[in-house]
Amino acid sequence: MANKISTKPPSGMRDFLADDVARRRFVVERITKAYESFGFVPIETPTIENLSTLLGKYGDEGDKLLYRILHRRDALTRAVEGAASQGRPATALELSDLGLRYDLTVPLARVVAQYGDLPKFFKRYQMQPVWRADRPGRGRFREFYQCDVDITGTTSLVADAEVCGAVAAALDGLGFDDYEIRVNHRGLLRSMVRASGIASEHETTALVAVDKLDKIGRDGVVSELIGRGIDPANAETLLGLAVADGSSSNVERLDSLAGSGIDEEGIFACDSLRELLAMTDSTSAGPRLRMSPELARGLSYYTGPIFEIAVQDLQGSLGGGGRYDGLVGMFGKRSVPAVGFSLGLERILVVMEERGMYPEISVGPEVLLCWFDVDAAQALEVATKLRAHGVRVEVYPESAKLKKQLAYAASDGVGAAFAMILGGDEWESQRPTLRDLTTGAQRSEELEELVGLIRQGGFES
Amino acid sequence: MANKISTKPPSGMRDFLADDVARRRFVVERITKAYESFGFVPIETPTIENLSTLLGKYGDEGDKLLYRILHRRDALTRAVEGAASQGRPATALELSDLGLRYDLTVPLARVVAQYGDLPKFFKRYQMQPVWRADRPGRGRFREFYQCDVDITGTTSLVADAEVCGAVAAALDGLGFDDYEIRVNHRGLLRSMVRASGIASEHETTALVAVDKLDKIGRDGVVSELIGRGIDPANAETLLGLAVADGSSSNVERLDSLAGSGIDEEGIFACDSLRELLAMTDSTSAGPRLRMSPELARGLSYYTGPIFEIAVQDLQGSLGGGGRYDGLVGMFGKRSVPAVGFSLGLERILVVMEERGMYPEISVGPEVLLCWFDVDAAQALEVATKLRAHGVRVEVYPESAKLKKQLAYAASDGVGAAFAMILGGDEWESQRPTLRDLTTGAQRSEELEELVGLIRQGGFES
Repeated sequence: MANKISTKPPSGMRDFLADDVARRRFVVERITKAYESFGFVPIETPTIENLSTLLGKYGDEGDKLLYRILHRRDALTRAVEGAASQGRPATALELSDLGLRYDLTVPLARVVAQYGDLPKFFKRYQMQPVWRADRPGRGRFREFYQCDVDITGTTSLVADAEVCGAVAAALDGLGFDDYEIRVNHRGLLRSMVRASGIASEHETTALVAVDKLDKIGRDGVVSELIGRGIDPANAETLLGLAVADGSSSNVERLDSLAGSGIDEEGIFACDSLRELLAMTDSTSAGPRLRMSPELARGLSYYTGPIFEIAVQDLQGSLGGGGRYDGLVGMFGKRSVPAVGFSLGLERILVVMEERGMYPEISVGPEVLLCWFDVDAAQALEVATKLRAHGVRVEVYPESAKLKKQLAYAASDGVGAAFAMILGGDEWESQRPTLRDLTTGAQRSEELEELVGLIRQGGFES
Repeated sequence: MANKISTKPPSGMRDFLADDVARRRFVVERITKAYESFGFVPIETPTIENLSTLLGKYGDEGDKLLYRILHRRDALTRAVEGAASQGRPATALELSDLGLRYDLTVPLARVVAQYGDLPKFFKRYQMQPVWRADRPGRGRFREFYQCDVDITGTTSLVADAEVCGAVAAALDGLGFDDYEIRVNHRGLLRSMVRASGIASEHETTALVAVDKLDKIGRDGVVSELIGRGIDPANAETLLGLAVADGSSSNVERLDSLAGSGIDEEGIFACDSLRELLAMTDSTSAGPRLRMSPELARGLSYYTGPIFEIAVQDLQGSLGGGGRYDGLVGMFGKRSVPAVGFSLGLERILVVMEERGMYPEISVGPEVLLCWFDVDAAQALEVATKLRAHGVRVEVYPESAKLKKQLAYAASDGVGAAFAMILGGDEWESQRPTLRDLTTGAQRSEELEELVGLIRQGGFES
């Protein structure tokens, strides 16, 4: 039986071996450093949330993508039998009471409602996995990490500027030099739709189409709009507003939109964006922001500026965000304005991998200790001394010929840069032999000397 | 409706705010450093495993404590309706296909079977949460972290010595100076039971009782043994073997047991432990190991030495481990010997908290930037420069009176050590004012000078 069990992780989920973990850590540490330099503090929330916390927060489609946990023990029996006694099968809602975290925003909202002593302006970052029972695909996983920064408690655009600055600093710190932070405004989008003569019930449909401009081009968007029952002339008007002149500056785009006949709400939105751009001018976000009137995301929850990070070689974005003044207060008695940005760890890793952006990250032992004609206690004593010097040491665990031990030291999976050889002579003289596995050079010295050679990264004969 | 939803995390699970996260990270980083110094490499596995991977690996009780995930979408409908068509409610097994990680050993076994190119001696560490639907209680949670080191692929006692050394180095690195690694051997326990004339079908019962020696004392164990139907004379004989002379050395205990009339298996076990003790003599584990013939844990899966870490002020252990040569091969075609040790993060945190063992960990902004008579762009420009110097800076996000901003800077939740004041004069002269919020001292200097004051941790007037 045992042999028939699959040893793969579940579909859409992954095991991370040492090199994977090292790279993920490298990226997470750089993002952490950037987020913390902006004064954000970390929180972590449980993997499991009450279903009552999760349901209804992500739309019907989101509810379907939730991983739900079956009742335990008696509660399950009660649920199943209760339904059966009514002559019907139990529903998903009756069978489960808990679910897996779907994003990091709803947990933030719950935390803000739960803990009364948080700072008025709560600047938190959170980097944890989330789970969605989505169709897996290339670069799309069912367990994936989000790296969120949010500021709650203020409607000030300084907060919007700071979340943009933080993600820009994070990407800068990782070595990205060609990304754009596309920016738009929820109110401007609404106003553009109205100015195009499109009825408000078509607003979402129209904007979802406009957001595909990058992917399907202007003509594609126009046909989609018409296909959705929008008057061709109105569709053209909307595209006229949404397609920015590629050579214009951000301020020129805003001036042009503000002067295009949009209403008060749109003009206010343009003013906000102009202010935001001015604020960020000398920050890490400044050179990255690009006014993108076609950008439409999170239409049901963003209330102000909206953001999305684009790089040329990635379909989809590295992250997105915006102001959402209605959401964080949903669990509490008072409304809580908020703005946030979320970086997708997996997307960042994919691009860094493809571009070869990782530095060399050393993982595993630096030294493999090979021993013969001494006993294991002596080998472990030397290893203990090396470790006290901060060296990462693996001891060959078995009695074996030196040749076999050295071959193991140099094998791919182990990846030690050095072998240390401890035979009877070396033990007597207390001068082990260090072999540089790259150059083949060997030296017999006192341990402190050898630590120096290890620290300098290698040596010639 | 929204107001009625509980904002607490689910029972037995916890939110970690900034100080909690900082302390957990501190501990995890120290453990990581120790494990890596022994050449262990990190792996991470998915939160969700196939139920087929999990079921039957933890005994009947373990199966009941698994968090199971409900089928999604159509698969759920099929499961529920399929059972209903047979006129019965669906079973838990039919309703779910996935479960949450219950420990880190079964995922290790799966990984070893899945990836053919792992090193022969696979030394991995893994620190991730696990979930058990257990009754929550003080210090017992349903989501908790394990910090495991294991070495697979060898029966050599060097591996047993190394996992002990690694956890000892981890605890040493955290500042523990009074712990014991209690050690015993599965074969010795079996042999002790036989030498006491207790039938093998009573072995587990007898050993579970003996393991309670610390808690319920010698008389308590004897009455429990008798209550379980064990002959009083045999119970006394077993206790005679299991209760060590408090003043004896480890080797004296082993010599005494080996000469007590136990059979071959017990004598072999004593030899193994004698060898293990000799090996670890000059390592971090050496001074910690204490031969404890009453120690009995993991009776159904340990096959050789067994370990448990005890500190005086904690009921229960900080961690445990042992050799388990039958488990890691269960998913593959070949058997894979293995030995491992698991530290319980929550237990370590509790003891460190109670003993005040944490260093001061600075979290959140070092500087809160207060601004007036300048615009936000100017404040953000100064913040950007400070951050480029590696300073963690929060910018007060709104226009407000300086007094209000300074009060916020000094408030508990923010915890900045300094306020930087940027008014019109400071902007003109490019010499912001830095206030040490502890001493109340203020200095106006060029930014580089102020960074120096921040780096030195404070200043007097």
